[in-house]
Amino acid sequence: MTVWVRFSHQGVDGIGSLEGSRVTEYVGDLFSNAQSTERTFNLDEVEILTPTAPTKMVAMANNFHALIEKFGLTVPEDPLYFLKANSSFHPSGQPIRRPMGYEGKIVFEGELGIVIGKTCKQVSVDEARQYVFGYTCVNDVTAFDLLNKNPSFAQWTRCKAADTFGVFGPAIATDLDPLSLRVRTLVDGHERQNYPITDMVFTPDELVSRVSYDMTLVPGDIIACGTSVGVGTLKPGNVVEITIDGVGTLRNEFVG
Amino acid sequence: MTVWVRFSHQGVDGIGSLEGSRVTEYVGDLFSNAQSTERTFNLDEVEILTPTAPTKMVAMANNFHALIEKFGLTVPEDPLYFLKANSSFHPSGQPIRRPMGYEGKIVFEGELGIVIGKTCKQVSVDEARQYVFGYTCVNDVTAFDLLNKNPSFAQWTRCKAADTFGVFGPAIATDLDPLSLRVRTLVDGHERQNYPITDMVFTPDELVSRVSYDMTLVPGDIIACGTSVGVGTLKPGNVVEITIDGVGTLRNEFVG
Repeated sequence: MTVWVRFSHQGVDGIGSLEGSRVTEYVGDLFSNAQSTERTFNLDEVEILTPTAPTKMVAMANNFHALIEKFGLTVPEDPLYFLKANSSFHPSGQPIRRPMGYEGKIVFEGELGIVIGKTCKQVSVDEARQYVFGYTCVNDVTAFDLLNKNPSFAQWTRCKAADTFGVFGPAIATDLDPLSLRVRTLVDGHERQNYPITDMVFTPDELVSRVSYDMTLVPGDIIACGTSVGVGTLKPGNVVEITIDGVGTLRNEFVG
Repeated sequence: MTVWVRFSHQGVDGIGSLEGSRVTEYVGDLFSNAQSTERTFNLDEVEILTPTAPTKMVAMANNFHALIEKFGLTVPEDPLYFLKANSSFHPSGQPIRRPMGYEGKIVFEGELGIVIGKTCKQVSVDEARQYVFGYTCVNDVTAFDLLNKNPSFAQWTRCKAADTFGVFGPAIATDLDPLSLRVRTLVDGHERQNYPITDMVFTPDELVSRVSYDMTLVPGDIIACGTSVGVGTLKPGNVVEITIDGVGTLRNEFVG
């Protein structure tokens, strides 16, 4: 397993592998031919960026049995999804902000993110894993009161697309079995979500396959797998942490 | 008024201004400091690309009074929108294709597209025009039967996001009054849509302003203004043309 990060050091963006708090710099394409420069940094010497710069983030709704049961929803026949706006992408360590003029609830949603590694169109479930570079943590931040503000048009895009709402990182872990993972969310140190990826309706490999029949996925693209029970509201000053063992902890303050 | 295109010539991408069928090459940033090289091409010597490479296309639903009236919808209080996937972006002249495994209706939707020229966050309606680079034609192609396939989750993203479904171009016209424009759609030469932009619920300037409060818009981003009455189904071999006088004609064959 390798844990990859993107970072900025003295104004220059780079990629590197992370061991403990030590970053080893690489050059080249993260997805194909990255080569170590053997130069290293401490994590506190660099600014962590989003681990990829995706062309899109496809984000799932209603993809966990526990959530579907809790809210009396129906298990979907197809993955149900929306897109997070590219302007919403936001790294670990940077503040989450309330959209101007919106006074309602701001909700955290801890999720597993699948990071695509190869251009991927119409791939089978069995082939899907070959197109996955690794896994990351996602906080699918939501302006919850916008979702059903209009009774005839659920505003999935609008409520999910604000600047700072597409939080992912801090790293990408390769060579993991995603079905072995759990997603934990802590707010100010208190556990609010702790759920297994095995409870998914569509598994990570199924999501890659199904979405790849709907649209072409390219290296760096993210599939956010949807959240499960335990989502809740953020208050100004709250620090929200999404932890997936082996991947890392995505940590952001909600500044209001 | 200037009419701008992006093109590929002998494998090299370029930008240029279009007069009649003559393209004058420019270098530099289309949105800030493009300079003429005085080199010219005939349109038939180049391959037309999408006129920008957007980071996002924000596409409206229910934004024309005639459409709302025809389908008994309610005039929305806020712009209602979804995002087209970046992998769907597709230029004039290239074939529109049916997503594999989908057997239902493929629908054309002729629309005005607003092209953003400057980074734009929380701008007023009065300021909005300063952030607009120009206007283009959009065909918001839709796999119509997916939209309401799931009774509890309207699949706006999925039905609009397939490869080749985010058709826009062929050009961007600057210094137009968008309220003077009409959108006409022809299928195999027969007029199917012909509607005035003045029938919009949210005007182009209002859309730029409202969306800029929801998310940051950047140069090259597109707001597709939504369609009006007359949308219909494409059959294999149909050629669909979206024409906006002063902007140009977006022409694509649906190959099935």
